[in-house]
Amino acid sequence: MELDDSPSEGEDEQLLDVSGLGVATWQRGDHRRWGGTNRKESTGAFQDILSVDSTSQYDDFHTIDWVRDVQKYRNQRKEILKKRHDSLRNKIYFYLYSGAGWIVISLVGLATGLCAGIIDIGASWLSDVKLGICANAFWLNQEECCWFQNNTAFGEEGCSEWYTWSEIFRDKSINAGSYIINYICFVLLSVSMASLAVLFVRAFAPYASGSGIPEIKTILSGFIIRGYFGVWTLITKSVTMVLAVAAGLSLGKEGPLVHVACCCGNLFAYLFPKYHLNEAKKREILSAASAAGVSVAFGAPIGGVLFSLEEVSYYFPLKTLWRSFFCALVAASILRWINPFGTDHLVMFYVEYDTPWSFYELIPFAVLGVLGGLYGAMFIKLNLWWCRYRKNSNLKRYPVLEVVILALITAIVSYPNPYTRQNSSRLIANLFKECGPEDDTDLCDYQRNFTRVDQSIYPSAAARPGLKNALWQLSFALVVKAALTVFTFGIKVPAGLFIPTIAVGAIAGRIIGVSMEQMAFNHPAWFIFRSCSATGKCITAGLYAMVGAAACLGGVTRMTVSLVVIMFELTGGLVYIVPLMVAVVISKWVGDAFTKGGIYDSHIELNDYPFLDSKRDFIHNTLASDVMRPRRGMPELAVVTQDNMTMEDIEILLSETTFNAFPVVVSKESKRLVGLVYRKELAQALRKSRNKYDAVSQSKVYFTNDVPLYPAPDAPTSINLLYVVDQSPFQVTNQTPASTVVEIFRKLGLRTCLVTQNGTLQGIITKKDVLGHIGALDSIHPDSMLYQ
Amino acid sequence: MELDDSPSEGEDEQLLDVSGLGVATWQRGDHRRWGGTNRKESTGAFQDILSVDSTSQYDDFHTIDWVRDVQKYRNQRKEILKKRHDSLRNKIYFYLYSGAGWIVISLVGLATGLCAGIIDIGASWLSDVKLGICANAFWLNQEECCWFQNNTAFGEEGCSEWYTWSEIFRDKSINAGSYIINYICFVLLSVSMASLAVLFVRAFAPYASGSGIPEIKTILSGFIIRGYFGVWTLITKSVTMVLAVAAGLSLGKEGPLVHVACCCGNLFAYLFPKYHLNEAKKREILSAASAAGVSVAFGAPIGGVLFSLEEVSYYFPLKTLWRSFFCALVAASILRWINPFGTDHLVMFYVEYDTPWSFYELIPFAVLGVLGGLYGAMFIKLNLWWCRYRKNSNLKRYPVLEVVILALITAIVSYPNPYTRQNSSRLIANLFKECGPEDDTDLCDYQRNFTRVDQSIYPSAAARPGLKNALWQLSFALVVKAALTVFTFGIKVPAGLFIPTIAVGAIAGRIIGVSMEQMAFNHPAWFIFRSCSATGKCITAGLYAMVGAAACLGGVTRMTVSLVVIMFELTGGLVYIVPLMVAVVISKWVGDAFTKGGIYDSHIELNDYPFLDSKRDFIHNTLASDVMRPRRGMPELAVVTQDNMTMEDIEILLSETTFNAFPVVVSKESKRLVGLVYRKELAQALRKSRNKYDAVSQSKVYFTNDVPLYPAPDAPTSINLLYVVDQSPFQVTNQTPASTVVEIFRKLGLRTCLVTQNGTLQGIITKKDVLGHIGALDSIHPDSMLYQ
Repeated sequence: MELDDSPSEGEDEQLLDVSGLGVATWQRGDHRRWGGTNRKESTGAFQDILSVDSTSQYDDFHTIDWVRDVQKYRNQRKEILKKRHDSLRNKIYFYLYSGAGWIVISLVGLATGLCAGIIDIGASWLSDVKLGICANAFWLNQEECCWFQNNTAFGEEGCSEWYTWSEIFRDKSINAGSYIINYICFVLLSVSMASLAVLFVRAFAPYASGSGIPEIKTILSGFIIRGYFGVWTLITKSVTMVLAVAAGLSLGKEGPLVHVACCCGNLFAYLFPKYHLNEAKKREILSAASAAGVSVAFGAPIGGVLFSLEEVSYYFPLKTLWRSFFCALVAASILRWINPFGTDHLVMFYVEYDTPWSFYELIPFAVLGVLGGLYGAMFIKLNLWWCRYRKNSNLKRYPVLEVVILALITAIVSYPNPYTRQNSSRLIANLFKECGPEDDTDLCDYQRNFTRVDQSIYPSAAARPGLKNALWQLSFALVVKAALTVFTFGIKVPAGLFIPTIAVGAIAGRIIGVSMEQMAFNHPAWFIFRSCSATGKCITAGLYAMVGAAACLGGVTRMTVSLVVIMFELTGGLVYIVPLMVAVVISKWVGDAFTKGGIYDSHIELNDYPFLDSKRDFIHNTLASDVMRPRRGMPELAVVTQDNMTMEDIEILLSETTFNAFPVVVSKESKRLVGLVYRKELAQALRKSRNKYDAVSQSKVYFTNDVPLYPAPDAPTSINLLYVVDQSPFQVTNQTPASTVVEIFRKLGLRTCLVTQNGTLQGIITKKDVLGHIGALDSIHPDSMLYQ
Repeated sequence: MELDDSPSEGEDEQLLDVSGLGVATWQRGDHRRWGGTNRKESTGAFQDILSVDSTSQYDDFHTIDWVRDVQKYRNQRKEILKKRHDSLRNKIYFYLYSGAGWIVISLVGLATGLCAGIIDIGASWLSDVKLGICANAFWLNQEECCWFQNNTAFGEEGCSEWYTWSEIFRDKSINAGSYIINYICFVLLSVSMASLAVLFVRAFAPYASGSGIPEIKTILSGFIIRGYFGVWTLITKSVTMVLAVAAGLSLGKEGPLVHVACCCGNLFAYLFPKYHLNEAKKREILSAASAAGVSVAFGAPIGGVLFSLEEVSYYFPLKTLWRSFFCALVAASILRWINPFGTDHLVMFYVEYDTPWSFYELIPFAVLGVLGGLYGAMFIKLNLWWCRYRKNSNLKRYPVLEVVILALITAIVSYPNPYTRQNSSRLIANLFKECGPEDDTDLCDYQRNFTRVDQSIYPSAAARPGLKNALWQLSFALVVKAALTVFTFGIKVPAGLFIPTIAVGAIAGRIIGVSMEQMAFNHPAWFIFRSCSATGKCITAGLYAMVGAAACLGGVTRMTVSLVVIMFELTGGLVYIVPLMVAVVISKWVGDAFTKGGIYDSHIELNDYPFLDSKRDFIHNTLASDVMRPRRGMPELAVVTQDNMTMEDIEILLSETTFNAFPVVVSKESKRLVGLVYRKELAQALRKSRNKYDAVSQSKVYFTNDVPLYPAPDAPTSINLLYVVDQSPFQVTNQTPASTVVEIFRKLGLRTCLVTQNGTLQGIITKKDVLGHIGALDSIHPDSMLYQ
C-alpha cells in the first residue's frame, strides 16, 4: 500500500501555495496556483472553461468598490424602469430584472438542498462501507440495511444482512482473525478514500480544500478570487467532501457545505447580468447562499440566516436578510423532502427531549463554558502553530502525502475505540440522546429495574461497569479527536471544523453530565439535589453534551447568537436556551482572554487576506495622514494634471508607476483635487484615442471642460478624457482620525480614498493601506484592537 | 355621564400638537407641547424633574452625529484603558466601564419583564371587571376566580363565584333586565377607564400616547426627543396602557410595550455616563430594549431581536445583536417566572398543535395573503386619511372628547357580540385553537359522535347551527374591529396595532378555515381532498387563523422575517413556517402595490419626522450640488475665514444667521476648506475669550496654527480658536451622485457634509437637506424611491 507523493513531480510542487489558495501572495502580486505554471492565467485551462466569473470588471485578487458597483446597479435599474413602458419586450425584461433575485435565490436554495441531500446520503453510506456491506443491496448503509430487515435495534455488530469485511472474506465466526481483517480493511479503505479525495482536489480544483469559510468571508467583504466559487470547485468539493468524511478523518462537512452553497449561488447568479456583472450585487446572493449552507448543515434555517449575518456577510441589507431566510428555508424544505436519514429530521443529532433543568446546574454549565473557551483558545493556538510550521517547512511540498499519513494514523488510532470508529455525526447523536429502556449500549448501562414501559423520563439509576468502561473510552476518544483535529484543519481536502468540535464538546459534556447524574443519584440528600427526589430524575446527561458542544464551538469560532440559535433549533424549544447562552457567553469570554479572534479570523490573518474585520474596533490616536501614502519623506504622489499633460507624459507616467489609480489635480502647484482616474480606464482611453481620434504623442490631454476654444494653429488634435475621471472620489482631511477612516472604509466598502488638507491633495489611502496600518499598530500594541 | 372636554380650556388646547408629540413642528423650530406654554422648556416643570436625558450635548429636536459620538466614545475608552494600571480605583472603573453594557442590559431585561408581567396581569383583571367581579377575591380575573373553584371549564356566564354586575345589583336570575344592567355597567366602566387613561396621559406624559414605534424608529435613527423615554412616560404609559386595553378599545399593548422597554433602557442608561452622555451609545441600549419589548409582547425572543434589527433599529452592530438577544431572553425568562396567564406560556395565544398541512392548502393561504395585503393597504389609507382629517380639523382640539366618544361607541357596539365583548387576546387564543372535545362554545359546535377520549387530532365533522351562528357573529366582529381600529390608532392613549390587526386577520382566517373544513367534509371525493380520508382530518381551522393573522400584520406593517419568526415562535415548530412565509410574502407584495410603506413609515411621513429610511433606495440622477445649500442664485454660504476676522465680525455673523455650523476657509477668495465649526461651540469659545483672555471686539480670531509671531505692537490680544474647529468634516465633491450622498448619510449617520469642487468649498448638506431633497423628488415621481 504505497501511496505515491514523492517530490519527483518537481517544479509543480515548488509552486504549491501553502494556504491552498494562492492568495497568501496577493500582496506581492504573483498569483501562482497549485499545480504550477499559473494555470488560472492561461485562459484555455481546464478550470476556466466552466469558470463563471471571468467577465468581471475587476482583476483577480483585487478589491471591489462597493459604492461604485451599487451606483452602477442603481443607474441600470433606473434605465430599465424608465424604458419599461416603451415595449412589451422591455416590460418583460423589467419584470425579469426585478424578479431576478427571487428566481436566483429559489434556485440556489433548491440546488443547495439537493447537494446537501446527496452528500449526506453518500457520506453516510460510504462511512459504513469501511465497516462492511449490505448483502443484497450494497447501496444501503448499515442502518438502512438493518431497517429493511425490520431489525431497527442493531447493535455494534449490526444485523444479519449486514456483512463485515471479515464475514465476506472468511466466515461468520467472530475471533481475533476476523478482527484483524476488519481492522485492515478499515484502514485500507480509509486511506484510499482520503487519497482519492486529495488527488481529486489537486487535479480538479485546489480551491476545494479546507473549510472555505475564511475565504468566503474575505470574498464577501469585497475581494475577488476567481474560480473560488466555480463549477469545478462545486463538483470537486461535493465529491471529495463525501470521500473525506467517509475516510473517517477528523473533519466535518458543515463548513464545506457553506462553500458548496456559495458555489451554487455563483452559478445561478450567472443567469442574470444584474448579478453576474455586478460584484456588489452578486455578494447579496452569496450571503443568502451561505445562510442556506448552514441551514442544511444543521437543519437550522434561522440559525443559518444569523450565521450569515453574524459571521460571514459583510454587507447585509434588510433585503438580503429576507432573501437569506427564504433561501435557507427552501434549502431546508428540499432536504427534508429528500430525507437523507429517514428520520424526518434534517440532521442526525436532532434532540427530542425537553426535561427541565435546575438552577444550580448553571454551575456545571459555566464550567463547561470555561472548558470550552480554554479548548477553543488552545485549539486555535496549536492549529495556527501547525499551519505556520507547514507553511515554513518542507511539509508544504507534500500535501498528498500529508493527507495519506494523517488518514493512516487516524484510521489506526480510531478503529479500536467504538466511539472514534463510528461516524462523528452518529457519535454526536448518541451523546446528545438520553438513554431509553431500549438502549443497551455501554453508554446506557444503568442498573434499572423498571419494566419497559413507554415513558419519556427515566429515573436516575446506578451506573454499571459498562458505563464506566464507556466513560474511559470516551475520554480516550476526546483526546484523540482533539489532537487529530489540530492537524486535520488545514489539510488539502474539504475540512469543516464544526463536527469534530461538537464531538469533542459533546464528549466532555457527556462525561460531566454522567458524573453529575451519578453524584445526584448517590447523594440525594445534598442540598442541591434535594429537588430531584420528587421526579427521580434531575440531570439530563444529553443536555450536558449539548451544552459542552456549544461551549467548544463557541470557544473555537467565537460565534454567539447564531450558535445559540443553531443549538436552539436542534432542540426546537426555548427550554435550554439559557444553559446554552451561559455556556456560549462564558466560553467566548474565556477564549477572548487568550486569543484575539475565532479560528476563521485567525486563518484570515494567517493567510494575510485583505479582510477588514467589523467586529474589531480601532482605537488608536493616529490620523489619516499616518495612514496615507506617500508617507513623510517619501517621493511625491504621482498625479495627473487637468490641462497641461500630453499623451506622452501620461504614457510615461503609466509605464513608470504601478499604481492602480491617479488623482487628477488642477495643477501640480495648487494640487487642488479634480478627481481620480483608474489606470485600467485611463490606459484604455489613451489607446482608443490613438487608434480612433488620431491622437499623437504630443497631443494635449485635458481632464476638464474648460478646454481652450482656439488652440494654437499647428497643435496636434487635443483630446478630452474627463469622461474617464471619477469626479466624486471619496476624500477626508489629513486630520481625520484613523479610526474614522477605518469606519468609512468598512461601512461604505471603499477601495480608495483621497486625503486633502485645506483643499489641496496630500495623499491617497487604499484598503491595503488601512489594513497595513491596522496590522502595524496591532503588532506593536496587541491589545489595541479591542474586540467589541 | 357628561365627560368634560369643552374648549373652555382655550389657549392650552390651541397649542395641542396633532401628532401627540409636538414634533410635527420640528422643522419650524417652535417646540410646543401639549398642555401649552412650552412646559418642556421651563426647567422646573413636573416632567423635567425626573427626565433623565437633560444633560445631553444636543438640543431637543436635533439630529445627532453618530461619527463624532462614536469617536468620542473611542477616545474615552482609550483613556480608561490606558489608565487602568495606574491605581486600583482606575482598574475597578475600567471593569465597570467595560461591563456597563451587560449590567444595563440585564437590568433592562429584568425591568421589561417585570413591567410586562404587571401590565399583563392588570389588563387581564381590569378587562374582566367590566363584566363582573369575583365574589370573595376581587383581585382575581374571571378565569382565576373560576379556577380557584376547580371550575376550569367556565362558559360564557362564568362560574358561581363570579358575579356579573347585574347579579350584584339585583339577583341571580337572568332576564332582559339583567342584560341591560350588565350592558350599562359595561359601557360605563369602559368609558370611565378610557377617560381615566386619556386624562392621565394628558396630565402626566403626553408622549405616552400612541404606539410609540414611529417615534422610536426616528429616535433610534439619530434624533433627539427629550423626555420621550422619561420616567413619567414610563409610569404613565404602563398605567394608561392597562386602562386603555381594559376599556375594550380596539388597540393592543404590544407596540406600547416596546416603548415601555425603551423607557426602561433609557432609565438604566442613566446609571453609566458611558451611555447616558453619549447619544450614539445610548441607542445601542435602546435597540436591545426594543427587542426585549417584542420578546415579552409575543413571547418571542428571537423574533424580538429580528424585529429590532428589521424594523426599529438604525445602527445595529453585531455587539448589539448579541446584547439584544440577551436582553430579550432575560425579559422573557422574567415574564415566564411571573407567569401572568398561569399557563407557562408568555402569551395567551400560544399554539400547541402540529398537525401537518397539505400542499394544495397553499392556495387558500395565498388568498389570505392577498386579503391581508389588501386589508393592510386599505387600513393604512383610511387611517392616514383620518389622521390627516384630525390634524386639519377642529377635532384636534378635543382629544379627550374624541377618546370618550370612541370608547362609548366601541363599548355599545361591542357588548352584544360575544366575540367583540371579550378581551382581544382571548378572542385570538380561541381563534388559533383547535376545537377539542371539551369545547362547547359556538365556534366548536360540530356534530361529533365520538366518545371523549384524550386524542390530539379530531376528525372533521359536520357543522351544527351554533357554528354557523358563530361565523355570522365573527363576520360582524371582523367589520367592527376593522372599522374601529382605523379610528383608534392615533388617539391620545397608548395604542398598539398588533393585537387588533391579528384579531382581524385571525377572524378572516378562521372563517376561511372553517369553510375549507366543511368543504373537505362535504366533498371528500374531490381530487384535492382525497388524501384527507385517511386521517379523517386535513384542515386545521386554527392554522388558517394564524396564517390570516400573519397576512394582515404583514399587510399593515410590511414586516417580513421578524413577523414570520414571531409567528413561528408562537407555534414552536418548523411545520407552519412555509404557509406563514407564503402569506407574508404575498401580503407584502400586494400591500406594496397600493401604499408605499408600512403603517409606521406612513406615520413617520405624516408627522414629518426626520427619518432616513434605509429600506428605500434613491435612484435619481441628481448630484450633490442639487442637494446642497446655497442653491443656485441664493446668497453665498456664510463662512468663517481662518485668519482675517475679528471678534466683532464673528459675533455679527452669529447674530445675523441661524445656521448651526459654519465652514472655516483659508480665505473668502480661494474658499479652500479648513474645517467646520459649530455655532454652539464657537459662541461658547468667544464668550470664554472675552471673559478670560481679555479679548475685545477688535481682537483678531485665528483658526490656524500659522499665527503671525510678531503682531502689530498696538494690536489687541489675538486669540486662536482652532481647537473648536472640527478639522475632519466630511466632504464630497459637487459631482457626487445624490444617491451616494444619501447612502453616506445613512450608513455613517452624518449630520453635516460639505461640498467641494476642485478643492474649493461650494456648499453644505445637512440631514434635513437630504430629507428635503428626497421629499421633493418623491412628490414629483412617486415611484422613484423604490422599496427594495
